[in-house]
Amino acid sequence: MNSTIFSTREAASFDQLIVQEVAPRDGLQIEPTWVETADKIALINGLSTCGFTRIEAGSFVSPKAIPALRDGEAVFQQIERQAGVIYVALVPNLKGAERALSARADELNLVMSASQTHNRANMRMSCESSLAAFDDIVRRALAAGARLNATVATAFGCPFEGRIDEDRVIGIVDAYREMGIEGITLADTTGMANPRQVARLVARVLEALPAAALTLHFHNTRGLGLANVLAAYESGARRFDAALGGLGGCPFAPGASGNICTEDLVNLCDEMGIPTGIDLPKLLALSRGLPALLGHDVPGQVAKAGRNCDVHPVPDYVRQI
Amino acid sequence: MNSTIFSTREAASFDQLIVQEVAPRDGLQIEPTWVETADKIALINGLSTCGFTRIEAGSFVSPKAIPALRDGEAVFQQIERQAGVIYVALVPNLKGAERALSARADELNLVMSASQTHNRANMRMSCESSLAAFDDIVRRALAAGARLNATVATAFGCPFEGRIDEDRVIGIVDAYREMGIEGITLADTTGMANPRQVARLVARVLEALPAAALTLHFHNTRGLGLANVLAAYESGARRFDAALGGLGGCPFAPGASGNICTEDLVNLCDEMGIPTGIDLPKLLALSRGLPALLGHDVPGQVAKAGRNCDVHPVPDYVRQI
Repeated sequence: MNSTIFSTREAASFDQLIVQEVAPRDGLQIEPTWVETADKIALINGLSTCGFTRIEAGSFVSPKAIPALRDGEAVFQQIERQAGVIYVALVPNLKGAERALSARADELNLVMSASQTHNRANMRMSCESSLAAFDDIVRRALAAGARLNATVATAFGCPFEGRIDEDRVIGIVDAYREMGIEGITLADTTGMANPRQVARLVARVLEALPAAALTLHFHNTRGLGLANVLAAYESGARRFDAALGGLGGCPFAPGASGNICTEDLVNLCDEMGIPTGIDLPKLLALSRGLPALLGHDVPGQVAKAGRNCDVHPVPDYVRQI
Repeated sequence: MNSTIFSTREAASFDQLIVQEVAPRDGLQIEPTWVETADKIALINGLSTCGFTRIEAGSFVSPKAIPALRDGEAVFQQIERQAGVIYVALVPNLKGAERALSARADELNLVMSASQTHNRANMRMSCESSLAAFDDIVRRALAAGARLNATVATAFGCPFEGRIDEDRVIGIVDAYREMGIEGITLADTTGMANPRQVARLVARVLEALPAAALTLHFHNTRGLGLANVLAAYESGARRFDAALGGLGGCPFAPGASGNICTEDLVNLCDEMGIPTGIDLPKLLALSRGLPALLGHDVPGQVAKAGRNCDVHPVPDYVRQI
């Protein structure tokens, strides 16, 4: 395989990297402070004008399980939808799917963990039960004309079981596709993936799946998020989840990182010449409003340090040397 | 160029990646809180038992310019030197070199910026004046039997001038080598490099320089530090600076990152199968002592999140599902 990213030869151009913004869902879901419905809507409306083609705007999970996102209906009904933007909703079960479809979600995202133990911890059922429950959701969504995506959580590692066998992940991807689910997300739910593992698994999955159907979801828990993106991109992946400000993860571990940070990813792409279609200055302005909205600092670094290409005025004393 | 890192084919083995630990110098130099000489010595002694072959242990700069490191002599004289570890000192001028040699530094590291503006801001002189001053230092060091390294600061970008012309960097590397300086460091002083640029410049420099003589020094200012390491490694670089805890950078910007974090880098290498010879659990224990020593949180992530390979106990409720 030739390296297209790190190559010392100039490539004529890079393929576009598509970013799905997930802060309104995967970012806000674990925030301890309630974010007002109007603020969620304003955030999504702001994101809708930055050039994204996909935004995961909320979830339709039990309000007892995730109170932070209990206003999913109001959010989906009141956002200003931009043409060309797909608004995605995470749904855990048929009831959630019905709610999401009523609220006019464009795409439903289903989740099951590759790890039995993690699926039991997260979904309170076995993987077999999860898969069986997907059947009704898929039928209902297709009948309603909605798009479908399904996520393989803990695809690169489970905090309880450790490394996940690749064949198991491939098997789940196949099962999803056989059910009629078009989009597949491989999620590194707790930030355990490394670039070499990512390159290998992505290459295997893309033997059977078109790149347009595959999303990679990385967390930056151990600082490897952007390196994993480059490894996946080099293996042919083109769609990535990322969260404004790097929101997500665990809010009770100060300094611990959540999702890969959207503006840090777009800055990387801008610097490397990989087109994203996303307006970085607009995104940075939105990100810089997050600490006031959430009441705490966020992990994203470019919003603090500025873009690579931003230069500073020369100090006066230097002019005199 | 074939990708050796992200390749989907299994490589028989990776070459060793050599980490030079720089926390005692580049990390501590900007700490606002005074770190006692005994604590510096204890830190370096601890690092000396982790498997490093190179530690930048201090600098011999004017105590007025960098008061945090004004005890360089005492540190170098009192540390317990381990066989096989090279203890490096940063020196800005001939006076600093004399002090470092008296204190038995094994290697002197000289610094000049590729950017004229940055060199004037940092060293208060032009690049030409810096280079001219190196001559005496080199002669003195070689006469004393010390090793020599010289750093090209702002090699990938200057906060005042922006992108630096590659030919200029190559010209400085050539000038260093012609003076008799064996080791060369390319430093991304303010975290402006991107992986593509790194791969290209490293490949060019290694056309004339053996990999054993080249060190890369990255900051994680915009979250690209480890991605830049992989790009450089893939282009043939094998030696990297890193700081315990990710110390360095600007202590007045909370959350902004400094040097790439040693334990995060070693964790990445362990996961990818790149040997470093460094004992990660020992390193993590040292890193976890930094917040108490410095009075603030540090950017390193693996010390907070644990290694990728650490698994957690399964919650009781899961066993009952």
